[in-house]
Formats: sequence, structure tokens, C-alpha cells
Amino acid sequence: MTYCVGLLLSEGMVLLSDTRTNAGLDNISTYRKMFFFEEPGERVICVLTAGSLSVTQTTLARLRDAIASPDASEATSILRAPTMLKVAHIIGDTLAQVRREIDEKLTAMEQGATASMIVAGQRRGGEMRLFLIYPEGNFIEATEDTPFLQIGEHKYGKPILDRVMKRSTSLTDGQKAVLLSMDSTLRSNLSVGMPLDLCVIEKDACRVTMKRRIESGDESFRAMSEAWSRALRDGFTQIKL
Amino acid sequence: MTYCVGLLLSEGMVLLSDTRTNAGLDNISTYRKMFFFEEPGERVICVLTAGSLSVTQTTLARLRDAIASPDASEATSILRAPTMLKVAHIIGDTLAQVRREIDEKLTAMEQGATASMIVAGQRRGGEMRLFLIYPEGNFIEATEDTPFLQIGEHKYGKPILDRVMKRSTSLTDGQKAVLLSMDSTLRSNLSVGMPLDLCVIEKDACRVTMKRRIESGDESFRAMSEAWSRALRDGFTQIKL
Repeated sequence: MTYCVGLLLSEGMVLLSDTRTNAGLDNISTYRKMFFFEEPGERVICVLTAGSLSVTQTTLARLRDAIASPDASEATSILRAPTMLKVAHIIGDTLAQVRREIDEKLTAMEQGATASMIVAGQRRGGEMRLFLIYPEGNFIEATEDTPFLQIGEHKYGKPILDRVMKRSTSLTDGQKAVLLSMDSTLRSNLSVGMPLDLCVIEKDACRVTMKRRIESGDESFRAMSEAWSRALRDGFTQIKL
Repeated sequence: MTYCVGLLLSEGMVLLSDTRTNAGLDNISTYRKMFFFEEPGERVICVLTAGSLSVTQTTLARLRDAIASPDASEATSILRAPTMLKVAHIIGDTLAQVRREIDEKLTAMEQGATASMIVAGQRRGGEMRLFLIYPEGNFIEATEDTPFLQIGEHKYGKPILDRVMKRSTSLTDGQKAVLLSMDSTLRSNLSVGMPLDLCVIEKDACRVTMKRRIESGDESFRAMSEAWSRALRDGFTQIKL
């Protein structure tokens, strides 16, 4: 499985993904699930993926092919699409098409392949947008009321986000919140694993302003995780029944 | 949906269930999901239920019928079964049988009915036992390493239990932990709802030593929930990225 989360805050967007991929419990690998499509200053798009690796890799390969193609147009290339809404449509249609093709191959085995994505981005002159794209290609968008979107194993890490996330949360607090949300998920679910990919896209920068890979031995992440455990245990101790 | 949790601690067992039942989102009702079978001082059994109401109600009705029947025996009545293991077998077999019967009725509609249960109990001279019974009738048991079992919407409330629960946790802290675990679930998932049923079965008492229904306006639960929110927010604020 996977856990990916994206925040749409007043000051920018924060995105976090794990890297664990597994085919059964005895075949575990590390694959990046965070991908960038960028023309710095003009347009930035970040895609987070969850689900069948064959579906997500093929979808991303087709998106890249469409960008590189001599026929690349506003209708096919996410680097030329006139709006982020159109970007979400292109990615959604590509994902749905790939999923259908792979699903057909798998029906003989009575298995299915599925995947979902988070797409965050901004083009110069446009607004920041954050979308969750479903396996069928349709999508929803983060709003003022719901500043975060999650894919994959989302339940363990939702309570902390429900309690602290607002649109007005700072980018620093946003990074803390997604890392703590991931920390809870890592502890409760083996199928989500380090290393992590974290990035920040500041408002109107139209480029990735911060990118960080957090390896399993990362000292600052470990310290944060321990401080959070301590805070939870102290809070728990102080509460009266 | 549902959220039920049971703890097996050194000093006794703590059980908590919500009461929300829904058939679709537009048909929500309140049904008790915690049931007692008791001969105080001799034997206590507490059953928590999750899943299709038609399955769980029919299963409980059959368990009661078997107890009241003139043919009640060690093999059929959970109040006569010689061990808690046998109790789990009787409940598991009854649940699996009812589920199969109801499933058959529903196949015409291409729907299925399923349910799972937590069974906690002790008989005089025996050990406290805590089981999770699956829809197929097989079961697992809480152990030293894993002192809690959950059914229904278990993911939201698992991180707090993973962090604070040990076999040696006191009954008071156990009650706090299950209530905070439920609080996180209530906040993140609409299909779990108040009122709550909480009970404690102290070790070797062989009876329910504390029973409490927590209504939605309950002042002490609200205070605890707010104190926990405050502790989480304070902890979050103090942590450094």
C-alpha cells in the first residue's frame, strides 16, 4: 500500500509520500511515488501516486510521452494545458485509460488493477489547485473547508489532520502535520514505509521551492517522532477519566 | 459502520462500543452493540458486534434460544460451555451459520451480509479471554503482545492504542485509552456515533463490575475529548520541524 497526502494552504502547497511498494507481503520494494513536471516560474505540477505500480508507471510514462511528442498540444500535454483543471482532466483520462487496459489483461486471473493520484500545481497567472483523481478518471478538489487530500492508507493519519489543519496553517506547521500524520501511519501499518518524499510549492513561485528525501535513519524525523510520542503520552497521562 | 474495541489487561478487561447503525447514509439508527451473558460470580461473557444488523441480531437471538432451550448442554449453551474457548467456538459457529443463511437470501440481489464480533469473558477458575470472531466463524485471541482487539472502523483509533496500550496498563488508563481511541474515530468517521457503551470486567470477579452508557451530551466525555484536543494541539505547537 501507500500513504500520500497533499495540503492546500494560503501560503502554498505541501506534499508528502512514502515509497513502499509490495506485491504480497514477501515482495517489498522502494519506488518513488512523487513526480514533478516543471517549467520553473511558468508552471509546476506535482503528482503523487497510489495503487498498482503497473498502472501508475504506465500512466506517468504516457504523460511524459505526450509532453515530448512532436504533436504535443494544449489538449494532450500537461505542460501546455491552459489551466490546472485541464491538467487534471488529461491525467484523469490517461489514468482511466491505462487502468481499463490493464484491468482487461487481468480479468482472466480474476484480479483487478487500480490506482489513484493527487495532483498539485499552479501555472503563472492561475490559482494553486489540488486534486484527488480516482481510478475512473473523475476527480475532486481541495477547498477552503477541506484543505487536505489523502490517497492510500489514509485512515490512521486522518485524526491528526482533522484536528490541526486549516487553510491558514503555515507551511512549517503544514510540514509538521503531514509528517506526524505519516508517522502515525508508519507505526500502525507495515505496508507504508520509509524513505519519505516531502516537497513544498510556495504560492505563486510556480516551481518546487523545497524538496527533501527523508531516509529511514533521518535524525530530525526520528526526533520529531519521539517528541510527538512523548507529547501524546504526557497528554494521555494528564487527562482525567 | 461501527467501532468496537476490547482490552485484555492484567487487572481485567475493558470494552467499548458505539451504537450507530445505518442502511445507507439516509437511514441512521441507534442500536446497542454490547451484550452480556452473566451468572454473577460464576461466569461473565460480553459480546460486541459489528456488521450487518440482521446477522448480529439473529446470531444473538440463537445464542439466547440455545441457553433457554430445554436441551441446553455444554455443547450448545454459552452459559454451560466448560471453557471460554468452547464459548468462542459456539459463537463462531452460530455466526458463520447465520451469515451463510442470510448471504444465500441476498445472492439474488448480488449483495452480501457479513459481521464480526469481539467476545470477552471469564468463568470461575478459568482465565480471562478476549477473542475476535471473523464472519467465517474462525477467531483470534488477544495475547501478552497484543492486548487489544478491534472490529469495525478500527484504523482511525489504532494509533493511540499502538502508542499507549500494554498488558500492564491500569483499568483506569485502559478506559481513557479506549474512549480517546473512540473520540478520534467519532471525529473522522460519520458512520460511528454516540451514545457509547463502556464496561469493565475486573479479573476474577466473573461479573460486569462497571457498566456505563455515555450519551452524546455527556459532560465528562466532552471534557475529556476537549482536554485531549488541547493536549494534541499543544504538543503539536511545541514540536520543532
